[in-house]
Amino acid sequence: MYKEIENSVCAPKGFTAAGMHCGLKKNKNKKDLALIYCDKICTAAGVYTTNAVKGAPVTVTKENLKNGLAQAVICNSRNANTCNKDGEEKAKLMCSLIAEKLNINESDVIVASTGVIGQTLPIEPIKNSCGELVSKLSKTGANDAAQSIMTTDLFTKEAAVEVALKDNTLVKIGAIAKGSGMIHPNMATMLCFVTTDINISSQMLAKALKYASDDTFNMLSVDGDTSTNDMLTVLASGQAGNNIIEEENDDYKVFCEALKFVCRKMTVLMAKDGEGATKLVVCKVSGAENKKIAKCVARAVISSNLVKTAMFGEDANWGRILCAIGYGYNEVDVSKIDVLLSSENGKVDVCQNGYGVEFSEEIAKEVLSSDEIDININLKAGNSYAEAFGCDLTYDYVKINGDYRT
Amino acid sequence: MYKEIENSVCAPKGFTAAGMHCGLKKNKNKKDLALIYCDKICTAAGVYTTNAVKGAPVTVTKENLKNGLAQAVICNSRNANTCNKDGEEKAKLMCSLIAEKLNINESDVIVASTGVIGQTLPIEPIKNSCGELVSKLSKTGANDAAQSIMTTDLFTKEAAVEVALKDNTLVKIGAIAKGSGMIHPNMATMLCFVTTDINISSQMLAKALKYASDDTFNMLSVDGDTSTNDMLTVLASGQAGNNIIEEENDDYKVFCEALKFVCRKMTVLMAKDGEGATKLVVCKVSGAENKKIAKCVARAVISSNLVKTAMFGEDANWGRILCAIGYGYNEVDVSKIDVLLSSENGKVDVCQNGYGVEFSEEIAKEVLSSDEIDININLKAGNSYAEAFGCDLTYDYVKINGDYRT
Repeated sequence: MYKEIENSVCAPKGFTAAGMHCGLKKNKNKKDLALIYCDKICTAAGVYTTNAVKGAPVTVTKENLKNGLAQAVICNSRNANTCNKDGEEKAKLMCSLIAEKLNINESDVIVASTGVIGQTLPIEPIKNSCGELVSKLSKTGANDAAQSIMTTDLFTKEAAVEVALKDNTLVKIGAIAKGSGMIHPNMATMLCFVTTDINISSQMLAKALKYASDDTFNMLSVDGDTSTNDMLTVLASGQAGNNIIEEENDDYKVFCEALKFVCRKMTVLMAKDGEGATKLVVCKVSGAENKKIAKCVARAVISSNLVKTAMFGEDANWGRILCAIGYGYNEVDVSKIDVLLSSENGKVDVCQNGYGVEFSEEIAKEVLSSDEIDININLKAGNSYAEAFGCDLTYDYVKINGDYRT
Repeated sequence: MYKEIENSVCAPKGFTAAGMHCGLKKNKNKKDLALIYCDKICTAAGVYTTNAVKGAPVTVTKENLKNGLAQAVICNSRNANTCNKDGEEKAKLMCSLIAEKLNINESDVIVASTGVIGQTLPIEPIKNSCGELVSKLSKTGANDAAQSIMTTDLFTKEAAVEVALKDNTLVKIGAIAKGSGMIHPNMATMLCFVTTDINISSQMLAKALKYASDDTFNMLSVDGDTSTNDMLTVLASGQAGNNIIEEENDDYKVFCEALKFVCRKMTVLMAKDGEGATKLVVCKVSGAENKKIAKCVARAVISSNLVKTAMFGEDANWGRILCAIGYGYNEVDVSKIDVLLSSENGKVDVCQNGYGVEFSEEIAKEVLSSDEIDININLKAGNSYAEAFGCDLTYDYVKINGDYRT
């Protein structure tokens, strides 16, 4: 659908990136400090966690983005800089330290942190590395940056696309993100940094970002816990050369859809790499009276621990899916619900009109043995559709989270 | 506080019970059919799951209890009789089969089923056993009945108390219940059958039951999944001989508190025996502006997979507790929150005024090594209090639910 290209956040014109080990993570081979930079000031926007307990970087970034402008993103992993007395002070220090080396205004920096909550952030390693980090900035540095924001992630999450506007101007959009636990739909539940070279006002950029995230990041759940530090930001350099977008015109619509495509791609990567996950699970709800109902049902199913463990066990225990539908939308007309399980290995009808249908356990097992499973639900009550993204619940989730701090 | 007595549901005057293996469970040593009976008609009340997908027995019991009268409870395990085309027919058949043997009206039977959803209920084993079940009724049959309603429960759940009314009439209340998965606060999330010999109108009985369950069963979460078949019912024989309670007088209040005590006891047993659980976790929230906020916060903490895995790992990762408080009530004043972890092994302050305090990891580990842990949260914003009941999330939860049907 979209032409996918290399170099994620460095693909759009104007952007470079870097990542390195500064000393926050114990293992010296693991990078822990990322930088994304644009050679000119950008319009910018963000969406943030709705959790009342907010990471200090979230507060500082919100303040810095009030004027709709930014030029760089700095992000460390291993420590969330949340619930610390000196949190805001340290977050601001991260901005000023990197701004000085980049020779930009400190209020034009987006700052983010991810990792353990409630441990004082050691600022020395960051302070001592800002110079080197800036010297590492390059057009090929996106993967290093993506590595540097990983916590329990098993792989880096990157994507970029190219799309043509009405006048054939080519626009690029790139993104890096990190998962992989404490993820539940409630405004930008994770860290994701998007860059683009489109020329767009910060107001329209914010609108596009909300549009793109509502059906993607906000429909993702790994474990039901809405994190304290989540943010999704976008920087637009304007260097693609299109006429500036200041209203909802055709170019705006093209950009929105391409941005949503990139966001969906990152969402799927995050679900796939959910803590301990062995399977990506997508719940596709059709035939709902309205979009809100479709979303509620999709989220309930994808968030159910019992559905998630059944997916892990490759057990077509569809009663649990019905159960989750029923509490997800407690006025649903049960007598109309159809459920179909599908994957690259085939498909199997398990429930029609609210009742079980006979199916081959062998075929069901085969369908569920895939590492990407779709739970297709038709409510047959309207025309609205929504999808939610999640993963299975495994022994490894418990293992990873039983002793995360040490 | 209350005098606890033996024989649970058989303790109140007029009641007998029985339990046996009828053939639904594969293992012949496991009982799967329970009966509770009163020698005279009782006033009765129930609260039920709010899930739109309701088990057929829930529908039939609701109908049967419309007149506020009942005389017997029949319950099978292994099969939930939910999402089956012939579900209601079978549930009604269970009522009429047992009513015939007991020589009572079939609409005076409370019927319940628990187990796998969406598999046709084999009625023959039940039909063939009703005679024997009735013949087994005795004053010592409560434990057999409690065994017969177990699914993944590891132990039976029983309690009974004796309490004196104003005129010194002694009233008894007994209960049996089953957990242990698909449990999340939303009106009576499990099966629990209560008996009492108090003389009370069915209207006041219903009111008392709601009062008692709101702070107990409705504050329990094992895994966030609100089941399809949950019900809590109470039968009152009136044989204690007190003046009938028809208004909110002193005796009503005494009864309400005693009923709540029994319900809380069953709630704690269910949390303790949550699927895969190694620890009972109680979250006690004080200092809230109102009860609703206190409940929201307590529920969010007790339901958090990340808090639950940390408890399993005996890791004082209090940042996750703050995180859950923040999404549980997203207008909380973070700067006032205190968190204290405690158990029989001691206590440890981990957070004061929203920030971490230095604590000994050794002492924290010692506190968390207990199998009953209290998470004490003070919001310092008012005088309201609530507690929620849950358990840790373990490898065994995943194991039990990865392949439940086979």
